[in-house]
Amino acid sequence: MDAALVAAPRPKGDVDALVRLAKDDMAAVDALIIARMQSDVPVIPMLAEHLISAGGKRLRPLLTVAAARAIGAQGDIAAATKLAASVEFIHTATLLHDDIVDGSEMRRGKVAAHLIWGAASSVLVGDFLFARAFELMVETDSLRALGILATASSVIAEGEVLQLTRAHDLNLDQATYLQIIRAKTAELFAAAAESGAVGAGATEEQVKALRDYGMALGIAFQLADDALDYGSDTATLGKNAGDDFNEGKATLPLLLAVQRTKGKEDLFWDRVITKGERTPEDFARARELILGTGAVEATLDAAGDYADRAKAALSVLPASDWRSALEDLADFAVSRAA
Amino acid sequence: MDAALVAAPRPKGDVDALVRLAKDDMAAVDALIIARMQSDVPVIPMLAEHLISAGGKRLRPLLTVAAARAIGAQGDIAAATKLAASVEFIHTATLLHDDIVDGSEMRRGKVAAHLIWGAASSVLVGDFLFARAFELMVETDSLRALGILATASSVIAEGEVLQLTRAHDLNLDQATYLQIIRAKTAELFAAAAESGAVGAGATEEQVKALRDYGMALGIAFQLADDALDYGSDTATLGKNAGDDFNEGKATLPLLLAVQRTKGKEDLFWDRVITKGERTPEDFARARELILGTGAVEATLDAAGDYADRAKAALSVLPASDWRSALEDLADFAVSRAA
Repeated sequence: MDAALVAAPRPKGDVDALVRLAKDDMAAVDALIIARMQSDVPVIPMLAEHLISAGGKRLRPLLTVAAARAIGAQGDIAAATKLAASVEFIHTATLLHDDIVDGSEMRRGKVAAHLIWGAASSVLVGDFLFARAFELMVETDSLRALGILATASSVIAEGEVLQLTRAHDLNLDQATYLQIIRAKTAELFAAAAESGAVGAGATEEQVKALRDYGMALGIAFQLADDALDYGSDTATLGKNAGDDFNEGKATLPLLLAVQRTKGKEDLFWDRVITKGERTPEDFARARELILGTGAVEATLDAAGDYADRAKAALSVLPASDWRSALEDLADFAVSRAA
Repeated sequence: MDAALVAAPRPKGDVDALVRLAKDDMAAVDALIIARMQSDVPVIPMLAEHLISAGGKRLRPLLTVAAARAIGAQGDIAAATKLAASVEFIHTATLLHDDIVDGSEMRRGKVAAHLIWGAASSVLVGDFLFARAFELMVETDSLRALGILATASSVIAEGEVLQLTRAHDLNLDQATYLQIIRAKTAELFAAAAESGAVGAGATEEQVKALRDYGMALGIAFQLADDALDYGSDTATLGKNAGDDFNEGKATLPLLLAVQRTKGKEDLFWDRVITKGERTPEDFARARELILGTGAVEATLDAAGDYADRAKAALSVLPASDWRSALEDLADFAVSRAA
């Protein structure tokens, strides 16, 4: 076998280097998040904290401060810090609303907020956090950064609606699938990095590089996420494995498996996705078909390509620990699925 | 009887004068609203148009352009026009979300959007319109106006959550009731007028006057609205009469009637509001008690006081047709209940 035809193993990547570098900056972001989610109406900080304190890696605000540092910003980065907190508020607001839209039961390893406080409170606290995000952005005096995050917010909502209207659609083409994940996920990664660069006074070339990095990273991240829904288990995922399947979401692993079992499993896919008539055993069967056809691997390969694009975009930035850590993050977005 | 103790009949007021004066300005606002609610995702403009084309009087954006004109702005008022469209987007977003929160079945004389397109789409299209509002505001280059409307948005959400957590609460004090209607309704009226003034380059004294006017007008408007829910019928209202009752909302007419029938109707109120065990006949009984105790009249009296405050706030503005029309609008906010 020709050695060139055997794919080199992908670098594992790492988020720890970035987390370590950004420790002080993220402590400032966290303090701001806590301070600005307060309200005299007790259920608001309670509900917000349920989700925000569950944490996760705070990838998006991490991108905002890392973008500022990667272009060489030293000392206090007040604008990027505020923009980072705004990004996390926007992200939290979309999670609160998505969990209602999807009827999700778990989020970040905890019971979803709408199941504890009700959908009404989740809708309204999402709105509150969204508005607080814009209040914070106003304080940066950067209309440009504000415009970037406002546009990202409308694009995210469009992506979510598009996904909703195309759920259960086995004929979804890959271009539309890509359009959906760009909008619902990658746009905020792109805007997070771009606004951090803008807030720190980056050159136009650097702003574009960081936006491109964020966009490619976000796509890689979502592709890996969609692979994880069939390739991982609930404990690793922090949300229910099979959620996408149970919502009938037409994600890439599913679309590839449907294509690769054409003429053989059409009735199964039609029943469980198009008609939405699922028994508890169907997820195991779908998973078997998706893994068996190599659809998860193919999805992760596509994620790897976007991770490479993300890394390539960083080449115009000065070499630094921050740039290296952002490169490692791109690989990590894919390898965390393994 | 001492003549001084007989209340003079309130002026009827009028919204037509303002609508006529603002005809061209509002045509520009409407065109902008239609242009900016477009999206490649078809359900978004469809759902948004369902609500926006049903129209109503567009009172809030009307306030924004009227504020600009009332301080003497001539010719093109591009910033105020964009802010007015933003205000309508924010208002529409909150209506979409509120109708989900309240489970309302009608809005502006039409079936509520969430019953046609589903709650998920209503949540997401609300988010989309909210984001579009901020995109539009960025174009005005006025960070101050943007901050005013961002703060209004978070205050509205707080007010809605507060109302939600205090529904079914017969012990709600009038101060908290007032806090709720200030936040959920009057704050956007205030911000609409204030931002229009700011966008048109008003003096600080004028900005404050128009904010105070909007706040008092909004309170009058909501008090009258709460009275209407018991004092009017569904056809006049454009939404279901008795909605507040059926949601167990502790509004002023209800709170006053509970207080005025203390020791006589406690079991009835406890059952229908606190416990929420309502039969279809209970609304008629509640309406009878509320009208019989003069609670609707007392609520309208309070609305009249705020209308007077609104008019008084305008005294620092130069006399003009616009100022007169705003004065008439304050009276109209109360008299439309009659």
